[in-house]
Formats: sequence, C-alpha cells, structure tokens
Amino acid sequence: MVKGIRFSGIASGIKAAGLDIGLVSFDEAVPYSALYTANKIKAAHILYNGRRAGRKARALLANSGCANACTGEDGIEDLAIIAHELAALLRIREEEVLFASTGVIGKRLPVGAVVAGLPALVGALSEERIEDFARAVMTTDTYPKIARASISGAEGWSVEGVAKGAGMINPLFATMLAFVFTDCPLDPLRMGRLLPALGRETFERISVDGDTSTNDTVMLFSTGRAGARAGVDRIREALGRVMKELALLVVKDGEGATKVIHLTIKGAKRKRFAETIARRIAGSPLVKTAFFGCDPNWGRIICAAGDAKVPLEPEKVEIALQGEKLAVGGVEAPFSEEKLKSLMAASEIELVVDLHDGAASYDMYTTDLTYDYIRINASYRT
Amino acid sequence: MVKGIRFSGIASGIKAAGLDIGLVSFDEAVPYSALYTANKIKAAHILYNGRRAGRKARALLANSGCANACTGEDGIEDLAIIAHELAALLRIREEEVLFASTGVIGKRLPVGAVVAGLPALVGALSEERIEDFARAVMTTDTYPKIARASISGAEGWSVEGVAKGAGMINPLFATMLAFVFTDCPLDPLRMGRLLPALGRETFERISVDGDTSTNDTVMLFSTGRAGARAGVDRIREALGRVMKELALLVVKDGEGATKVIHLTIKGAKRKRFAETIARRIAGSPLVKTAFFGCDPNWGRIICAAGDAKVPLEPEKVEIALQGEKLAVGGVEAPFSEEKLKSLMAASEIELVVDLHDGAASYDMYTTDLTYDYIRINASYRT
Repeated sequence: MVKGIRFSGIASGIKAAGLDIGLVSFDEAVPYSALYTANKIKAAHILYNGRRAGRKARALLANSGCANACTGEDGIEDLAIIAHELAALLRIREEEVLFASTGVIGKRLPVGAVVAGLPALVGALSEERIEDFARAVMTTDTYPKIARASISGAEGWSVEGVAKGAGMINPLFATMLAFVFTDCPLDPLRMGRLLPALGRETFERISVDGDTSTNDTVMLFSTGRAGARAGVDRIREALGRVMKELALLVVKDGEGATKVIHLTIKGAKRKRFAETIARRIAGSPLVKTAFFGCDPNWGRIICAAGDAKVPLEPEKVEIALQGEKLAVGGVEAPFSEEKLKSLMAASEIELVVDLHDGAASYDMYTTDLTYDYIRINASYRT
Repeated sequence: MVKGIRFSGIASGIKAAGLDIGLVSFDEAVPYSALYTANKIKAAHILYNGRRAGRKARALLANSGCANACTGEDGIEDLAIIAHELAALLRIREEEVLFASTGVIGKRLPVGAVVAGLPALVGALSEERIEDFARAVMTTDTYPKIARASISGAEGWSVEGVAKGAGMINPLFATMLAFVFTDCPLDPLRMGRLLPALGRETFERISVDGDTSTNDTVMLFSTGRAGARAGVDRIREALGRVMKELALLVVKDGEGATKVIHLTIKGAKRKRFAETIARRIAGSPLVKTAFFGCDPNWGRIICAAGDAKVPLEPEKVEIALQGEKLAVGGVEAPFSEEKLKSLMAASEIELVVDLHDGAASYDMYTTDLTYDYIRINASYRT
C-alpha cells in the first residue's frame, strides 16, 4: 500500500449504471508529473490541469461516461465549479485539485450531478478503496486495472497504478487514463525525466485500434511518505514494471480482443524504421482479422511491412509466429498449416519479423480485430 | 466499344470455383502506361512488366486467386514461361505480353494449370467479352466493375475500363487492378503525364481498409483505332470519368461495406493538410464502425482529425453530415439525434469537415466497417 493516499469511487449518474466518479486524496500536497495526449484536440481536463497555478496536488477527481472534450471554455469552467466545491469539502485549495475524464466526446459534464455526489465521494475515502477508484474510471473495460510493486524492509516503499482502456487506444506517449502512485520520495525534476522515458517503453508500445484519444493521460504522484530515497535504478525499474503491467492489462482488455499479439521487429537499420513497421503491422485490419481467424497469412504481414514507407529489402525478410518460420528470404518457408492454426489459437502470440538489415529493434503489443469490436463500437454512444 | 481489342476469361483452376484468368488481346502493338503500388513489396507481375524490353503491348494476361507476390525470382520465371506459351498461341513476341495478378500473397502460380488453360482462353477471345475478363479478375468482389465513356460521330472514340477490389484498398496512387482502354490515339508521353494526374484524382481518393496492396496496378492502353486525335481536355475528361466511376465501384463493393462515405475536408491552410486529415478520418475504425451503427458520433471524427499530426485550430472546426451541422466552433451544435440516425441509414453519406483555416480542400471516398469485413477477412485464405 502506498502511504499517504486514500481512494473512493461512487455512482453519480453520469453513466446509466455503475461507478462513474473516483477520487484520490493525498494527505499532503504532493509533486506530480503528467503525460497528455498528442492529439491536437485536447479534453477540458488537460487544458484545465495545464492552466492551474499549483505545482502540487492534493486531490485528483476522475470520471468516466463523459470525455468532456470538444466542450470549449464551458467544459473548463465546469471543472472550475467542481474544483471549488471539492476543495471546500476537503479543506484544500482549489488549485490543488486535478481532473481526468474519459467517455463520450462532445458532451458537457452534468455538473449538478457531480457536485451532488461529492459529499458521498469524500465520505467514502479510504486507504483500501483503490479498486472502487479503478472501477469508477472504466468505460468499455471489462475489469479494473491495478498493478503494484514494492520494496520491503525498513527503507521499503511501494508503487501502485490504475489504468483504464479499452478503445481509442494508440497512445503516442500516453494512454487513455493511467495513474501511478508511490510513497518513494521523488522530486519533480526527476519525475519529469522518468515519466516520458517510461511512457515510451510501456504505454507507447500498445495499440488496440490505432486511434489516439483526445483524453490520453498518465499521471505519476509521489507522496514521499516512505522516508528514505530509493536508488534511481530501483525506482525506475519498479515504476516501469507497474506501468508495463498496466499497459498489458489495457491491451488484453482491448475492445473485442480475443488475443494479444506481441510483435517484435528486429534486424532493422534504425530503431525508427523498426517502430514504423511495427505500428503499420499493428494497425492493419487485415493482419488483425487474420489473427482473429487463426490464419497464418504471413502475406498480409509482409504487405503491411512493405507499406510502412521506410527502407526494406523484401528478399531478406523473415517472419516467425510462435517460433515457427513462415517466410525466409521474403518467400514462403515450408510450414504445417494445421500446426500454425493451433498455435494461433493461443491467447498470447509472439510474432517476430526479422529484416536482416541491421541491429535495431522495436517491440509492441496489439490485439486481433473481431466481431465484438464492431458490436461495441457500432453502438457505443447510444 | 473500343476498337481493336478482344477479351476473354476462363476458369483454369487457380481458384476452387469461378473464372480466374482473363486475357486482353490487341490487334496491333499498342502504347500503354502503368501505375504500380507504392508498397516496398511488389508482386512478380510488377517486377516482370518493369524488366520487359518491349515498349508496346499486344496482350495482357490477368489472374485472380494468386497474387504471385513474395515469390522471388521463381515467381518472375513462372511469368516468363507463361509469356512464352501465350506468345506462341497468339503469334506475337514474348516481350509484348504484360501480366497482372491478384489474390493470396506468398503462393506460387500453378503454371501448369495456367498454361493448360491458354488455348481455351485464346479461343474465346471476342470484342464482346469484356465482362468475362472483368469476372476473371474478381476476388472478394461481389460484382464485375466496368465503366465506359465515348464521343460519338465520325471522329468519335471510346474509353472502357475494368477494375477489381475489394479489400487491401488504400491505393497510394494506384488501386488493386484496373485496366483502361481507349481507341483514341494517345502517344506514350502524353499517357505518362495523364495517368498519374488522373490517378491522384480518382483511385488515390478511395480507401476501404487503409492497407495498400503489393499488387496495385492501373494500366492505360490506347489502340489509336478511332482515327482522329481528341482534344486533350476531352480525352482527359473521359478518362477521368471512367477512372472515377471504377474507383467508386471499387469502394462501393469494399469488403463488407454497407455504405459509402464521401468525405470532404475544406477550409484547410494547405491541400496536404486537408488530405492528411481526410486519410486519418477515413482510416479510423472508430469512425467507420459509428457509420455502420448510424451513430452521429462527431466526437470520433474530430478526434481523428486532431490525431492527423497537421495544424488544426480545434475551436474553428465545423462538422456536417448530410448537410446537418453536428459541431460548430469545435463544440456540439444542437441537432436531432433521431433525424441524424435516419439520414445515416442512407447508402451514400456526405461528411464535410470545415477547418475554417484557409482555402484548400480535399475529398475522398471510404466505407463503413462491419461484421462482414471481419467475416470475410478472418477466413479469406483458408
């Protein structure tokens, strides 16, 4: 458990059913660092958090069911009203309140309902209720996403993180919503350096549908309550482990997904080339439907690689699925169709594309594309 | 009818059922021009056609059921064997034979079956059999795609075109397979200038699934049999009309598509910005599933626009569907959900995104994303 933090989550009525506002309360003002979406359209909470005078945070209010994006100055003013009310209840300063929202784009928050729910939300605060908070930020997620890491002993400290998915997932440095808490003392400068680097290694490496959301947010908070400072390598490793676990929970729960594909591009001249090819393959609906159908259709994989608009020597490309080679030297390798079909029925699949053209590599995680993705998204809003 | 051309199509056994090889025979050697895929992985027919010594063509052999891509030098040698046999039957020179293939990537052509079918294919040649040829190049297409334009009178001439879709459609200058024939005299230099320009205005403006194929090919042939030369504006207009009609036939028959979305981005600072935003929206699975579900979810549209990584002023964006405004100034405009739902049930939908930031525009055509796309592609190969 991370010292110095309490959580709660309640149903305020933003959504027809289920928890929809969650609160994190810090015993003291804590330093934090945030990554926000690269989308040019940014949700009100991102604009609001950016304008705040405060450098530290005492409270974080997160909601699902409404993205509060494309709501203009009104959407930002709505948050100011809520911050005012929440600050009074918690006896903190308005500028110590942060926000995060997820849900339908283009609709205003029902401010009256949210404000009416605040006393219950504050009343429910407890060190034990991180799962209520995690449930309050779920949209099409099918389970709450929490990850933990800790170092025991007298000088011990902990890291806890919460995330939500499950569609519009192609974080170009951030994801949907994710919150990471630690009681390990960290100064803002170190946090500001650590978070983007860890984001690139974790949340940036997942994609469900290639759509980068307007609301993508990753926040890291340090209460400093654990006492002793941790070595930079140990805290980096612990944060990275929690963030990676959250990222994997998000991709595993991708909308309609039946399997996770761990995609590695190696033998590239440059890491950038490997990443571009990985993203192109991860974004191909033809590749993703073939994985759903357990079809070892390597032609679609090499086609997507060739379409990535980076240098590629077709006659060197090697493709392996679950360790079985499908193509060598750019042409088909002898393989058993039946064996591959059964290997592809697994819920986690290793796909390796070796370009045999250099020493750089990149790996990421994506999902298959299924009937359920269509079902969920053809009727999400209404 | 275009003078000086005969067509045929037969079932050779490449596919389990249906016509799978098509032949176009020109009475004399004709000049031609071709656009090929921008994919770094290019099918054998593209490599073979590029290596031929001949500048003119007497025959075009097209097949479906096998892309003959990622087959290395063997795949090219297979075409040389077929060219040798076909040239003997037609009494033409080997280097006057062109090829085009579509189908599964990574499999060799069954050369024996194709060669065995050539006598019947040559025997069936007729000025009337363009539809047999069009059927022979179909894969997941649900109907043959033929378009025509002509100028009547003594100095009259005609244009005929054939295309096939229906998946892996995101032609970045060319599409799947399309063949355009005219008896209007055109010299190779003019053809070489006209075709890329017309490609940009027609085939480049459609996308079904964002996957640019390894086999994309557009070919233009001129038999010159009509006698008088046409004015450049008239032939450009006629070719453009036929190519646009073919492109629309391809997108309408996109895998699993229930509707065509005509997407216009206007008010952009530069045409390139408008095009980038259009392609990003056309490639968003969330936008495409919302169209399938008749959901006027403009938030997904503006989210995709904001994710296009080109300049955008969120507070100026206006979005209209079938003439009804959904968003003005970047925020929701009052609209009737019921009315929009019924407007979106149409098979052709006009979507206009006005950036109010300049005078440049770009328009293109895309499809919705449906259960049938998943069904077709989770089981295409096997």
